[in-house]
Amino acid sequence: MTNKKIIVIGGSATGPKAAAKARRMDEFAEITMFQKGPDLSMASCGFPYYVGGFFDDRNKLLCTPTGVVRDPKFYWNAKGIVARVNTEVTRIDRENKKVEFTNLETGETGSQEYDKLIIATGASPNMPPIPGVDLQGISTLQSMQDADYLRKVRDDGHIKKAVVIGGGLIGIETLEALHLAGIELTLVELLPQLLTFLDWKMAKLVENYLKTKANVITKNGVAEFVGENGKLTAVKLQNGTEIPCQLAVVAIGVRPNVKLAQDAGLKIGELGGIVTNEYMQTNDPDIYAAGDCCEVKNIISGKNVLAPYGDLANLQGRVIGENVIAGDIAKFPGTIQTGICKFFDYAVGITGLSEEKAKEAGFNYERVLNASPDKPGFMDGKLLITKLVVEHKTRRILGAQCLGPGDVSKQLAIWATAIKGNLTVDDMVNADLPYAPPFSLAIDHSIATAHIMENKLRGIFKGISSVDLKEKADRGDDMFILDARGADEYEQMRLGIGETLIPIGKLRERLHELPEDKNKEIITFCKISLRGYEAAVLLEAHGYTNVKILEGGIMAWPFDREK
Amino acid sequence: MTNKKIIVIGGSATGPKAAAKARRMDEFAEITMFQKGPDLSMASCGFPYYVGGFFDDRNKLLCTPTGVVRDPKFYWNAKGIVARVNTEVTRIDRENKKVEFTNLETGETGSQEYDKLIIATGASPNMPPIPGVDLQGISTLQSMQDADYLRKVRDDGHIKKAVVIGGGLIGIETLEALHLAGIELTLVELLPQLLTFLDWKMAKLVENYLKTKANVITKNGVAEFVGENGKLTAVKLQNGTEIPCQLAVVAIGVRPNVKLAQDAGLKIGELGGIVTNEYMQTNDPDIYAAGDCCEVKNIISGKNVLAPYGDLANLQGRVIGENVIAGDIAKFPGTIQTGICKFFDYAVGITGLSEEKAKEAGFNYERVLNASPDKPGFMDGKLLITKLVVEHKTRRILGAQCLGPGDVSKQLAIWATAIKGNLTVDDMVNADLPYAPPFSLAIDHSIATAHIMENKLRGIFKGISSVDLKEKADRGDDMFILDARGADEYEQMRLGIGETLIPIGKLRERLHELPEDKNKEIITFCKISLRGYEAAVLLEAHGYTNVKILEGGIMAWPFDREK
Repeated sequence: MTNKKIIVIGGSATGPKAAAKARRMDEFAEITMFQKGPDLSMASCGFPYYVGGFFDDRNKLLCTPTGVVRDPKFYWNAKGIVARVNTEVTRIDRENKKVEFTNLETGETGSQEYDKLIIATGASPNMPPIPGVDLQGISTLQSMQDADYLRKVRDDGHIKKAVVIGGGLIGIETLEALHLAGIELTLVELLPQLLTFLDWKMAKLVENYLKTKANVITKNGVAEFVGENGKLTAVKLQNGTEIPCQLAVVAIGVRPNVKLAQDAGLKIGELGGIVTNEYMQTNDPDIYAAGDCCEVKNIISGKNVLAPYGDLANLQGRVIGENVIAGDIAKFPGTIQTGICKFFDYAVGITGLSEEKAKEAGFNYERVLNASPDKPGFMDGKLLITKLVVEHKTRRILGAQCLGPGDVSKQLAIWATAIKGNLTVDDMVNADLPYAPPFSLAIDHSIATAHIMENKLRGIFKGISSVDLKEKADRGDDMFILDARGADEYEQMRLGIGETLIPIGKLRERLHELPEDKNKEIITFCKISLRGYEAAVLLEAHGYTNVKILEGGIMAWPFDREK
Repeated sequence: MTNKKIIVIGGSATGPKAAAKARRMDEFAEITMFQKGPDLSMASCGFPYYVGGFFDDRNKLLCTPTGVVRDPKFYWNAKGIVARVNTEVTRIDRENKKVEFTNLETGETGSQEYDKLIIATGASPNMPPIPGVDLQGISTLQSMQDADYLRKVRDDGHIKKAVVIGGGLIGIETLEALHLAGIELTLVELLPQLLTFLDWKMAKLVENYLKTKANVITKNGVAEFVGENGKLTAVKLQNGTEIPCQLAVVAIGVRPNVKLAQDAGLKIGELGGIVTNEYMQTNDPDIYAAGDCCEVKNIISGKNVLAPYGDLANLQGRVIGENVIAGDIAKFPGTIQTGICKFFDYAVGITGLSEEKAKEAGFNYERVLNASPDKPGFMDGKLLITKLVVEHKTRRILGAQCLGPGDVSKQLAIWATAIKGNLTVDDMVNADLPYAPPFSLAIDHSIATAHIMENKLRGIFKGISSVDLKEKADRGDDMFILDARGADEYEQMRLGIGETLIPIGKLRERLHELPEDKNKEIITFCKISLRGYEAAVLLEAHGYTNVKILEGGIMAWPFDREK
């Protein structure tokens, strides 16, 4: 028996993972990994933190945990894998089962046979098709070279003003990185909201926080890069505004690198990614593909999506590593598009479907908002705002969004695992999670969120979203808005939409101050709407028929407040 | 219709939660809560952190999140609940559906009728039946009074030496608290290990870390408290050792307070707790009970256990609050005994069954250990050591233990949710968790743990535990132990059990240094045994038939190491 020949195209995340797993599955397979660029196994998700100065040693992006740089020598010695860097695969010859390649340094060309081929060509950043894109001072943050360039910007300290174009994950991470470099920043987003995978309100809360750090412009695209002597001097927006700057970083998404696959006649999906089955196999059974160059199934909606996330790339690589050696034994189940993003002292993320996505997918859903701390006040607990979306009929969790200075990562991990397990609200209502004051409240924020949802599904918590309330207030609807907090809290901060303050502790004795008409619409709230909820049930008990609670209270109010 | 009369006995966690939920379910119910002590809704899990100086304002243990002390006035004004403090319920008269009580301050007695009664009498700390227990300087950490006393010890600064008796959760939390007060400490545990809900090795790793902070003695009980002039001067152990000290804190577990229930003829279980059904109802359908005074079902083993945890107390209280008003609509599913404990810069915890418990319960299980960081090195990732236990046949998760300076809380939350969802290893192998470098590795520690387990179940990862390897080494078994790390790592730290260093990168060219006998037992390892794993598969590929990997590598080695 001859040794199995495996070729991997791509040396970033999926490729090295597939190659290493294949090696562990078969010591004698001949494994070659082609990488167009000079570096291998770059921790590209770490670029913003290198640029932002969280660490200074560039090699940490390229090293094993014990500090060995993952270069071709390492791959050969430690893994028995031939890694050919600066070498571009130019063609896949399916008929003869070989690839053709060019060494980009020497110009040499060659070809090599495969038994199994793995395509992990990743994605490339989009650039806007506008004048001036070739000016000096315009970058992305996608490659080691980008990271080196932007880190040099930090270290040099010459650039004072920059524009980040695109309010997605990378845009926001880049914004933080450059802000930490002392640069005055403007973030420009073409759409009406940042982080479009979130619902509008959650994204608005992110935007509100970012505005304390940078100038944020939405609903306005970039029309032109303006320059002098080949250097960027300003970004001109579609509404004519010019923002003077010496640097612009473009982060308007990526597109799958599928040319090789397409030229070879492999199936490309509607979204522009390579299509695979659950074994990560293309329509050619000897060719596998994974990572950012592929489409992947959303487990909840059943639809294909583009999900260029580093964790999926690695997991898919492992699946391929098993399958190319052992036959198709491992399946990749798909994604629930879990994502998280740090921004300064906050984090924000999502798992599963947003309300918008649930609506699009035709689910009959319920949603709630919970604004409450992650830990007790005496342990310096920090705010979390969670939006939970649940299917009405089955009560199963469809999705959760979470943001705040609190422990967002744990919340999302809980919900992601709950979705994986097809758990319902009822399962989460009495979940048994690790509790001690340094880590959570006695009733964890996730469980409290499930409690509110249970109450809402049961009809004893009738919520109104801040967006709906703001609309009603702006329209001048006839309603009574009851703030159930204390007078001191009211003095510090209030909505300013005509609310009346009656602290919950006084409500029973001051019921006469409520409208005489028991059918009048009443909205109750407090800081996080727990007292608001108590006020609402109290009023309903006293005959009021149209009482709603402002979900998430003042803490989740995305609009301007008084004071 | 007359208003429903509800009496709650106990004002700590379960009681107030049940009362408040009942109020939200029924504005007109007459709700009275009896509390033997002066305080209500004490955050008793927070006592160690008050004693340890994490915060200084005692009222934070008694306040709402907005700073209102939860005293009888608060309960009446905000919740419409009559809270009678310093008032002991002395008898439950089931026939006449009333309770008799005594005001402990005035001596007044009285009785009050109920439609529904809620018993939430909690638990009392055990005291050892030995001489000297009445000496001044002996305390527990169970009540506000205990917390006040020990906080005063901190503030006064007179006490230099103390002994903590009992190596459970409270004992270890107390140890940290008193250590932070600058006191020299000895921890005494009767059993061969601390934290008996963990498997021996995990507990040993905790013990090893605690020994860097305090003197730790296991397998030795306390025989006598020695004193002079009524004051503690030493703790005498069963082996005769006397430990001089001015303070001893006893933390050897709690026993359910069931006298009231027992006297009323309610059913008490074999473990000494009140027995309820899943509605938290005792054998008297008008009497409910929950919290530390009750037994609760372990969902995995199906057996009743005592699980005196604050989170369960609150969740059960909520279930009762619903049921006493709306009829039996809410069920409490039981516990998987999730627990977590901070100790200095580390945390440790468990969810589900330990290996010992799985064995006891008759499961055919597999277990693995994963020692690896929670985040990338460049984001200052910290070590986590996870032990995962899985049922062999069904591959479902039975339990997980985790410890380390890394994010233990998130790991346990993931596994607890996975157990709730009856998830298998295969579900977790491609879980879609929130990934970004500030929060996790691209392949989260929990997923990596599932990967190792999958490999082990498939027979391609053959592990040996450190305990077994140590035994073999001590016995002088004929084996070849291969350290696959780098020479620099070897210089810094090594096991010192006769291992041979061959770095993984040199192994292919140095195969001739391995034993000629291909059937000889070979043990491979590295820092965390990933390179150890690679070495093992490499050796097997070259015909070695008896290769095992030291699980968890050097990082999870619980015994003395060289250097």
